[in-house]
Amino acid sequence: MYVVLIYDIPLEDGGARIQRNVFKICKKYLFHIQLSVFEGDISKVQLKQLKNELDKYIRKEKDSIIVFKSREKRWLEKEFYGKVDDITDNFL
Amino acid sequence: MYVVLIYDIPLEDGGARIQRNVFKICKKYLFHIQLSVFEGDISKVQLKQLKNELDKYIRKEKDSIIVFKSREKRWLEKEFYGKVDDITDNFL
Repeated sequence: MYVVLIYDIPLEDGGARIQRNVFKICKKYLFHIQLSVFEGDISKVQLKQLKNELDKYIRKEKDSIIVFKSREKRWLEKEFYGKVDDITDNFL
Repeated sequence: MYVVLIYDIPLEDGGARIQRNVFKICKKYLFHIQLSVFEGDISKVQLKQLKNELDKYIRKEKDSIIVFKSREKRWLEKEFYGKVDDITDNFL
């Protein structure tokens, strides 16, 4: 399964720490392609693990994570407008 | 064609104005589902128009917009962790 994960974690009330943790967790499973966007091939089981790890940190009433799932990577074409992001390990 | 569009526009050097313009343009063609995320059904021609409009504003060396394209909406499943976003018209 191919997924795109996008998080929106407001900075207020300790959001920065949550952002850092969410970032680290996502990076274990997926590739970082834009500020708060990850993508990658992942199994159902791994995605479940990822979700469980994230659930420990995210605030149900404030933080939002969207996961788009595609059965096949080739069904999802990607295009960049503007700068092609090259963020990899330089966030933390 | 079903697309997910995610923008990353740093605030420095007048980024706020660019963000507002990008937001307005995206909203003409797609639905706003998270802070800087839009999705929707769009034709090839409309997507080209959208890109042309965005190109007038985005800074090639700073701003990044990623568009994921799926031929069919049903090929792209969406899941929310945490807060289900209900941002619609309250950004501007």
